[in-house]
Amino acid sequence: METSAKRVKQPLYEQVAERVTSLIDQGTLRPGERIPSVRRFHRQLGISISTILQSYFLLEDKGLIEARPQSGFYVRLRARELPPEPKTTSPSPSATRVGIGEFAADVHEAIMNPTIVPLGAATPSPELLPTKKLNRFLGAVARRAEVGSNRYDSPQGNQELRHQIARRSLDWGCNLSSADIVTTFGCTEALNLCLRAVTKPGDTVAVESPTYFGFLQILESLNLKALEIPTHPRDGICLDALEKAVKKQRVAACFVVANFHNPLGGCMPESNKKALVEMLGRKEIPIIEDDIYGDLHFAQERPKTLKSFDKHGRVLLCSSFSKTLSPGYRVGWTAPGKFMVQVRRLKLTNSISTATLPQMAIAQILQNGGYDHYLRQIRKAFATQVQLMTQAIKKYFPEGTRVTRPMGGFVLWVEFPRAVNAIELYRRALEKNISFVPGPLFSAKRQYQHFIRLNCGYPWSDRIEQALITLGQLAAKMG
Amino acid sequence: METSAKRVKQPLYEQVAERVTSLIDQGTLRPGERIPSVRRFHRQLGISISTILQSYFLLEDKGLIEARPQSGFYVRLRARELPPEPKTTSPSPSATRVGIGEFAADVHEAIMNPTIVPLGAATPSPELLPTKKLNRFLGAVARRAEVGSNRYDSPQGNQELRHQIARRSLDWGCNLSSADIVTTFGCTEALNLCLRAVTKPGDTVAVESPTYFGFLQILESLNLKALEIPTHPRDGICLDALEKAVKKQRVAACFVVANFHNPLGGCMPESNKKALVEMLGRKEIPIIEDDIYGDLHFAQERPKTLKSFDKHGRVLLCSSFSKTLSPGYRVGWTAPGKFMVQVRRLKLTNSISTATLPQMAIAQILQNGGYDHYLRQIRKAFATQVQLMTQAIKKYFPEGTRVTRPMGGFVLWVEFPRAVNAIELYRRALEKNISFVPGPLFSAKRQYQHFIRLNCGYPWSDRIEQALITLGQLAAKMG
Repeated sequence: METSAKRVKQPLYEQVAERVTSLIDQGTLRPGERIPSVRRFHRQLGISISTILQSYFLLEDKGLIEARPQSGFYVRLRARELPPEPKTTSPSPSATRVGIGEFAADVHEAIMNPTIVPLGAATPSPELLPTKKLNRFLGAVARRAEVGSNRYDSPQGNQELRHQIARRSLDWGCNLSSADIVTTFGCTEALNLCLRAVTKPGDTVAVESPTYFGFLQILESLNLKALEIPTHPRDGICLDALEKAVKKQRVAACFVVANFHNPLGGCMPESNKKALVEMLGRKEIPIIEDDIYGDLHFAQERPKTLKSFDKHGRVLLCSSFSKTLSPGYRVGWTAPGKFMVQVRRLKLTNSISTATLPQMAIAQILQNGGYDHYLRQIRKAFATQVQLMTQAIKKYFPEGTRVTRPMGGFVLWVEFPRAVNAIELYRRALEKNISFVPGPLFSAKRQYQHFIRLNCGYPWSDRIEQALITLGQLAAKMG
Repeated sequence: METSAKRVKQPLYEQVAERVTSLIDQGTLRPGERIPSVRRFHRQLGISISTILQSYFLLEDKGLIEARPQSGFYVRLRARELPPEPKTTSPSPSATRVGIGEFAADVHEAIMNPTIVPLGAATPSPELLPTKKLNRFLGAVARRAEVGSNRYDSPQGNQELRHQIARRSLDWGCNLSSADIVTTFGCTEALNLCLRAVTKPGDTVAVESPTYFGFLQILESLNLKALEIPTHPRDGICLDALEKAVKKQRVAACFVVANFHNPLGGCMPESNKKALVEMLGRKEIPIIEDDIYGDLHFAQERPKTLKSFDKHGRVLLCSSFSKTLSPGYRVGWTAPGKFMVQVRRLKLTNSISTATLPQMAIAQILQNGGYDHYLRQIRKAFATQVQLMTQAIKKYFPEGTRVTRPMGGFVLWVEFPRAVNAIELYRRALEKNISFVPGPLFSAKRQYQHFIRLNCGYPWSDRIEQALITLGQLAAKMG
C-alpha cells in the first residue's frame, strides 16, 4: 500500500480510509456497491483486521459507507449526491368522497401486465421470491394432507399458521397468541374486514397524505370518506395536524402505514408511534395499521408496530406475505384487537375461511424454510435496488426533481417540477411500454399531480436503466 | 322361478314384476337399495333380457323403482312410505333488516366442529370428495409452475380455469366465454361482489322463503334488507307473489337458488325459470343466481340455469367447487353479465385476485381428471343418502313430521309438529354432540320455528342412524 509522503504521522487507519475515499471519488466504487471485505484487504495489504475495521468505522462515521448486517460495507449515496427530498405534505383539511376507482382499476390492469417494464405495481421480482421452495412445500403439504383437511377451515384460519405468526410477533414488539389472529386472503381482505368492523358507510377515515391507492379504492368501494393528513416523508403522519383534524370532525378510524410507508418509504420514530396510539386511544378512534413492509427494513433493527404500543385493543394490525413470499398465494392476516368478534364474523360472511393448503405451506416455510435467512437476502437486494434507482433518478430526471429516502420496502416517491403532469406522463410512458403509478391516485383529492411512484422490486438492469432514461426525457419535454 | 298357478295367462314380465314387488313389500329390498341387475336376473332365472327390462319398466311406471344413469335400478320410497311434504310457505310481505348474525355465527362454529355428528353444515363427507386426486394435481401444478406464476393473478382470474368453466356452461344451457367469468374465493365471495355491484346499503333484496342462511348473513353484513317471498318446496319461488311484491316496493335485486334449493331441495320447472327471468327483466331487477348445487341432480338431466334464459345480462350467476370438489380450496366464480366491470373492480378491492395454484389445480381436474365420471358417482351417493335419511325420519321422528323431497343436492328440510321448538332442540341436540341448522336461521323474520335443515352429505352409518333416533326422541319430548 502506498502511503502519502507528506503525512507520515497520519495513522494507518486514516490512510486506508483516504484510499477508499479516493476510490469512491473516482467512481471506481459506486454508491450501492460493496467495498472489499475486511478479510480481503487484510490478505491483500497485510494490514491488521482491527486497523481496517477502524478505518471502515471512520468512513461510516463520515457517511461514506454503511454496514449491512451479515453482508459487509457498502458505498452510500452522499447527501450531496442525493436528490433533495419532497417536503411534508399539506393536503386540504376536509373529508372527501373518493373517486379514483375507474382510473385506478385501469392503472392496475396496465401495471400488472408482465410484459411491461415493471416500475408500476409494488411487487418484488418473482426471481427474488423463494417460489420454487414455497411450491415444493405446498406440494409436500398437499401430498401428506389428510382427507379431512379438505373441509372449510375455521373462519379464524389455520392454527399452525396463526401460531407461526404469533411467534414472530415478538420481533415487532407484540406478544400475540394464535387466538388473536384471523387469516385472510391477503392484506387486502384484512383491510376490508377491519374497515367494515369499525366503520359504517358514509363515515370518515383519516389517512396519511399521500396514502396507498389500494386503500383509497377500498374506501371508495365501501362508500367511506378519506380525510388526508399532512405527512412527513421520513417521520410519517403529523401528529399535531391529526389531533386538530379529529377534534374538528368525527373520524371513525385512522389508517396508518407506520413502517416503510407506501409510497413514502418512511418509518415513524418510536416516540411518534407511541404518541399516536395514545392520542387516538384517548379519543377511542381505532387505528388500522398496515405493516406489510415491516420485515423489509434496511437498518439492522426490525421496527416496532403501532400495535406494540396498544394497551386497549384499538389497533387492528394487518399484513400478509405478498411482499415477502408470494403475491399469488393470497395469504394475509389481521390481529384486530378488541374487534375480533366482528372481524371473524365478517370473514365468515365475506369468504367463509382462507384456503387451507396455501396457509399450511406458508406455515411450513415460516417454521422450517429458512425464512429469516431469506429475509436478510431480500432486504439487501431491495436496499441496493432503491439506491441504484435513486442514483439513476439523480442522473436522468429533470433538474429540480425530488425523491424520497426510503428506510425499507421497495418504492420511491418522486416529485417532478410542477410543469410535469403525472397522468399525461403515465400515458406517454405506457406507449413506450413503461409503467409507474401516477401521484394523483395516492390522494382522494387527486393532489400530487406532478408526483409518481416507482417500484424498485426488480433487480437493476439495462432495461430498467433505459426506462428511467426514457422517463426522464419524457418528463423533461413537459418541463 | 315360481309362477302363480291361479294366473297362468299373466305375461312373464308381469310375473317378474310381481316377484320384485313382493321382495320390496317384505323389506328384503329396501328403499334406496339397488335391485338385482338385468344381467344377473337373466343369468339366474334364464329369462330373456328384454323381458326383465320390460318388467323393470313396469315397476318404474308404478313408481316402485327408479333408473339411475349408468348405475341400474333402485327401490324408491313409495308415496305412502314418504312423510308428507311441507306446504308452500307464506312469509310476511314486508322487507326486514336481517338480525341473525350472532346466532348464525355461533351455529356456524358448532356445525363446523369435525367431532360432531355432521347433520349441520351443508357439506359432503370429505371421504366422498376426490381430495387425494385434487391434491396430487395441486402438487404437480406447483412443481411445474414457472416462477412468474407467483404474481398477483389478474382480478378476473386464471384463464385456463375460466376456459374450463365456460366449456362446461353448455351443460347448463349457457354459452359463456372465459371473458364472461370472474373467479372468486368460493361462491361466498362471488355472492358478496354481485350483491355489492347491484345494491347499496339500505336496499331491499327479494329472497325465497326459506333461503340459504349464509346469504342472509351476507345481507346483514352489507346492511341490506330481505323481502321473503312464498316458495313451493319443489317448484320454487312463487312468481305471482314475487310479481306483486316487486310492484308494491322497490326491490334492488332478487336472490334465487333455482336448482336444488338450499334448504328445500326443489328445482324450478323450466317454464317458471323462463317466466321469472322475463318478469324481472321487464322491471330491470337483477337476479343473483346461486347454482352451487346444479351439478348434483338426481334425475338424468342437468337442469338449466336461470342465466340460460337471460337475454340482457341481468342474471349474475354464482357458483363454486365447494360442494363437488373441495370446500377447502376456496375456488368459486361468477358470470355477472352486464355488471362485469363493477364486479371485476370489486374483486380487485376485496381481495385483488384469486390464489393462482388452487385455480390451476381445479382447471386441471376439470380438463383431465374424470370430473364427469366422478360427478355421476357422487350424485348416486347423495341420492341414496337423501333417501335413507328420509326413511329414517319417517321411522324415528314424531307423527306429523313433514319432509321435503329433494331433486338434487344433499339437504333435507324437516317440518316438525308446531310444539317442537327448533332452537331449543338445537341446544339439546348439541349437548348430545349432534348438529343441524335450526329453521329460524333461514328467515330474516325468524320464521320456521319448528323446522330444521339436515345435511345428507355423509354416507349412511350407525352413528347417523343413532343420531336421528336421538333427535326423534328429543323432538317427541317437546311435542
